[in-house]
Amino acid sequence: MKTIDQRLDALRERMRREHLAAFIFPSTDPHSGEYVPDHWKGREWISGFSGSAGTAVVTQTAAALWTDSRYFIAAEEQLTGTEFRLMKQRMAGTPSIAQWLAEELRESDSTEVGLDGMTNTYQEVCELKQDLRKRGGFTVRTNFDPLETLWKDRPEIPTRPVEMQPIELSGEETRSKLKRIRQALRSLHADGTLLSTLDDIAWTLNLRGCDVHCNPVFVAYLLISSHRTTLYINKVKLSAEILSYLTEQGVDVDDYENVADGLRHYSEYNILIDPTATCYTLARQVACQEVIFETSPVAEMKAVKNEAEIRGFRQAMLKDGIAMVKFLRWLQPAVKAGGQTERTLDEKLTSLRASQPLFRGVSFDTIVGYEAHGAIVHYEATAETDAVVEPRGWVLIDSGAQYEDGTTDITRTIALGPITDEQRRVYTLVLKGFLQLAMCKFPDGTTGTQLDILARQALWREGLNYFHGTGHGVGAYLNVHEGPQQVRMEWRPAAFHAGMTITDEPGVYLPGRFGVRIENTLLTIPGKTTEFGAFLEFDSLTLCPIDTTPIIVSLLSDDELAFFNHYHRRVEEVLSPHLEPEEQVWLKEATKPLTR
Amino acid sequence: MKTIDQRLDALRERMRREHLAAFIFPSTDPHSGEYVPDHWKGREWISGFSGSAGTAVVTQTAAALWTDSRYFIAAEEQLTGTEFRLMKQRMAGTPSIAQWLAEELRESDSTEVGLDGMTNTYQEVCELKQDLRKRGGFTVRTNFDPLETLWKDRPEIPTRPVEMQPIELSGEETRSKLKRIRQALRSLHADGTLLSTLDDIAWTLNLRGCDVHCNPVFVAYLLISSHRTTLYINKVKLSAEILSYLTEQGVDVDDYENVADGLRHYSEYNILIDPTATCYTLARQVACQEVIFETSPVAEMKAVKNEAEIRGFRQAMLKDGIAMVKFLRWLQPAVKAGGQTERTLDEKLTSLRASQPLFRGVSFDTIVGYEAHGAIVHYEATAETDAVVEPRGWVLIDSGAQYEDGTTDITRTIALGPITDEQRRVYTLVLKGFLQLAMCKFPDGTTGTQLDILARQALWREGLNYFHGTGHGVGAYLNVHEGPQQVRMEWRPAAFHAGMTITDEPGVYLPGRFGVRIENTLLTIPGKTTEFGAFLEFDSLTLCPIDTTPIIVSLLSDDELAFFNHYHRRVEEVLSPHLEPEEQVWLKEATKPLTR
Repeated sequence: MKTIDQRLDALRERMRREHLAAFIFPSTDPHSGEYVPDHWKGREWISGFSGSAGTAVVTQTAAALWTDSRYFIAAEEQLTGTEFRLMKQRMAGTPSIAQWLAEELRESDSTEVGLDGMTNTYQEVCELKQDLRKRGGFTVRTNFDPLETLWKDRPEIPTRPVEMQPIELSGEETRSKLKRIRQALRSLHADGTLLSTLDDIAWTLNLRGCDVHCNPVFVAYLLISSHRTTLYINKVKLSAEILSYLTEQGVDVDDYENVADGLRHYSEYNILIDPTATCYTLARQVACQEVIFETSPVAEMKAVKNEAEIRGFRQAMLKDGIAMVKFLRWLQPAVKAGGQTERTLDEKLTSLRASQPLFRGVSFDTIVGYEAHGAIVHYEATAETDAVVEPRGWVLIDSGAQYEDGTTDITRTIALGPITDEQRRVYTLVLKGFLQLAMCKFPDGTTGTQLDILARQALWREGLNYFHGTGHGVGAYLNVHEGPQQVRMEWRPAAFHAGMTITDEPGVYLPGRFGVRIENTLLTIPGKTTEFGAFLEFDSLTLCPIDTTPIIVSLLSDDELAFFNHYHRRVEEVLSPHLEPEEQVWLKEATKPLTR
Repeated sequence: MKTIDQRLDALRERMRREHLAAFIFPSTDPHSGEYVPDHWKGREWISGFSGSAGTAVVTQTAAALWTDSRYFIAAEEQLTGTEFRLMKQRMAGTPSIAQWLAEELRESDSTEVGLDGMTNTYQEVCELKQDLRKRGGFTVRTNFDPLETLWKDRPEIPTRPVEMQPIELSGEETRSKLKRIRQALRSLHADGTLLSTLDDIAWTLNLRGCDVHCNPVFVAYLLISSHRTTLYINKVKLSAEILSYLTEQGVDVDDYENVADGLRHYSEYNILIDPTATCYTLARQVACQEVIFETSPVAEMKAVKNEAEIRGFRQAMLKDGIAMVKFLRWLQPAVKAGGQTERTLDEKLTSLRASQPLFRGVSFDTIVGYEAHGAIVHYEATAETDAVVEPRGWVLIDSGAQYEDGTTDITRTIALGPITDEQRRVYTLVLKGFLQLAMCKFPDGTTGTQLDILARQALWREGLNYFHGTGHGVGAYLNVHEGPQQVRMEWRPAAFHAGMTITDEPGVYLPGRFGVRIENTLLTIPGKTTEFGAFLEFDSLTLCPIDTTPIIVSLLSDDELAFFNHYHRRVEEVLSPHLEPEEQVWLKEATKPLTR
């Protein structure tokens, strides 16, 4: 905590010299990633808060950190003992950054606020600028990064080697993807675009990397014009084989640092810049007649999985299901035998996954939350918090893996011994929501905002809710969080189409008591076509039993019960041939049909 | 049909003289009303199409009319024999107006398109201008109304007397409403606003009128600045009593024609103009420093009913339920006796409503659709189409009334004799959707876009759907269609709050065969408040039995069945004391609990 104080002192000294009244540290990087390479973890460096979403703001006399409900408890703990006050986003009474600054800086003689334009998206900076102007006449300076001098042992931008994603798994040549991207750009009247988002670049080029924790991507930019494609990357990452592959696919290579120069020399009439995915500084470099600020079409193209990707997903999910069943069968006896903690459970599960073919790592930091820790939405056990797991109550395990053939994301809440009636009731209501979304059917083009209530209505009827999204897309050996499709209460215009993945993960969190979440990854598939149009439905990619012991069967409708039993029958049929005899017996019992 | 040809000839002659390549006639008026006074029915005059939504476009060589699915069948009929081609909005392959014009005017030497800026909203004109510029480099002329000279017997703007809405029914003084409007404007940083929407003006001033078919409103504008309120109205409408009431409430009066002048002399720094509710011409008249284009706060204030308005609604709904029960009891024997048609049913129902206290008229043109006519969403029987109603199949009746204490809107689909298994199945699926929406609970602030799927999921699972909204707000002795809250597939940002009304009206329409719709008007009421926030639920304002004979009980869930029986029990308990003994017997039977 001392460290944070010293860093704040140093920062304030620099701010005074630059006449900055405040400095804002977001949680992203020039590639607007969710997980960022250590080099860009400036917000964590200054505040100590390590969550994947949050913004730190520092004035001469105060410091505050905004984050969302997933991180309220974790942030509270990590900020204790520092000057930082926690600002709970989207909660009544929480001021916006601009409102807070207007209040804090009433007496300040400087009205300039700093932030690094490379680590904030164009849209964020524009909105913040407008908001700050409205609230207190503040101006924003974007060309100064105090971390360059303050952060002495700042990690370098990673330079790990890039790897090929074979055509058997990607299912489409880069050349063909580039052609489709250019078609999509033309339909938006755009001559070119800059891709900054690392998974969009990896998908387009059929390349993977390991620059970012849990995400198989590499740090780079891709500038696409009507006649040319340039990859801006540190060339030490590229083998001769990959260099020649890129040439063959029509992709030029230039140094990572040259991207701004590339934009200044971009010679087409206009360019499409996605204001939510491009950093402010680069968005302002482009030297063409017109900048079209629109959503990039690449995210949606990547979201619709082709046959090879779907085949890969099914292989990956099979392996993941096998690892999960081995783990679940091991779990209860191991806990009874004693000596297990949240972290040993994580190790066991990860090691079972690691022994599956093509395993490349976890797709996010495993969440193992025993009892009250399950109520911390993005909990990660540390040496200090690591709880002994006992044969009573339940444990929430949210985990996933990167296999070369697909990415997985699954949550199970597993009873380890006696649980309360309230736990049973809440578990069953969450399960109802999970089933309602999994079994729904809807017209092609329906948005996730429309679907969301299916996962919540059973909870809402009882006055329960959860303040995270219900579902996100999952990449094909790419990021576990992928857009544009999402299922959530807030408006998201992205429509569902066949081939899109989506998680189905309702939950309930009762702080200090317990949390429940049940999650499968689903695939959007074609349903009926009738005189009312083409309909879609979901097929579960995830194959793993759902703990039946907490279920109050009488709370399930006939539909829900039939769907649940059908899912379990399928899990058993698909996984069983790949299991040892004792595991088969366990799975048969775990997936036994529920009856009233 | 001859008439339409002659009108098109005359219009084209004028267009040639003005060098206009095309002229666009929307369906609205300077007050962006849904029902418009005859004076502004220019689109109907030129095309013959009388629906409440539609846009006619005329070039020298072609004419087309865009309307939505509610009117496809009606428009098809009304346009037969004219030059007008029907353009089905939101159907695959239908061009936009700009796309169509670009195609039609490829060879035209003029690139100017005309429309009357007084009868198009600011937003519509801006979007159309942009679209027309993009598509074919067209410019738009907005200051020319060809109807002024062409439409010889054009009706005058109505001048009927304005009436007071007593405080016992309005529940809040105009003075207090104006104070709240100014507070709301200040929170949007606005000094004033122009109200063009007639129901917003009537609500603010606690006045009612009869200038518009079915809507108890009067033609006027209301200009509100920080210190002054001016009603622009034809003064012949105002009695001495109302004039003195307005003075007492701090409202000045000026001539209707002077509104543009008022805007030119508006002396505040800025003004809020609702771009979706203000006509283009007036929005461009304002002579202040800044125009804030934002949604007017008045529609939402009006949407939240106060206690007096809710009391009035319950009285109106009780009377409407009594009239409906008398009608339903009469219906089957009358149809059996023979000689009934769609129009005689309408007359009977309207006369039963008319004998209730404080009846002021229907709230929209009654829809009585027998069998295949029920599939025409906004069908209105004419002398030519009026079908004999026989004791077989079913009839869809969508109707409502204006009472001084409240506005009603109800749809019932009533079996008159044998119906098919398919009818039973579809009826029950529609009922499931109706019940799911009626029984849902949700956090304060939820939007109608989120709720919509509850009414559709049972249909979607079977590949069925309907292409109209699921619900709209209903005014308190005001327009039967009221916003901003709506329940529909498309995104609508307006959130639900306690006190808002909403209809619940899913349906299915199988052209040439039959239609079903079941509709109640609901009131949003507070539900539980828990650690997850304040929840809302719906209470049915409409009290009327729902035909049970077509229901397949086994398709209803336990929840749905219990809710349905509970509703029927309540209908019987509340209405019965107000009915004749034989009607009580009928109602008891009609609301008998369903069992499996």
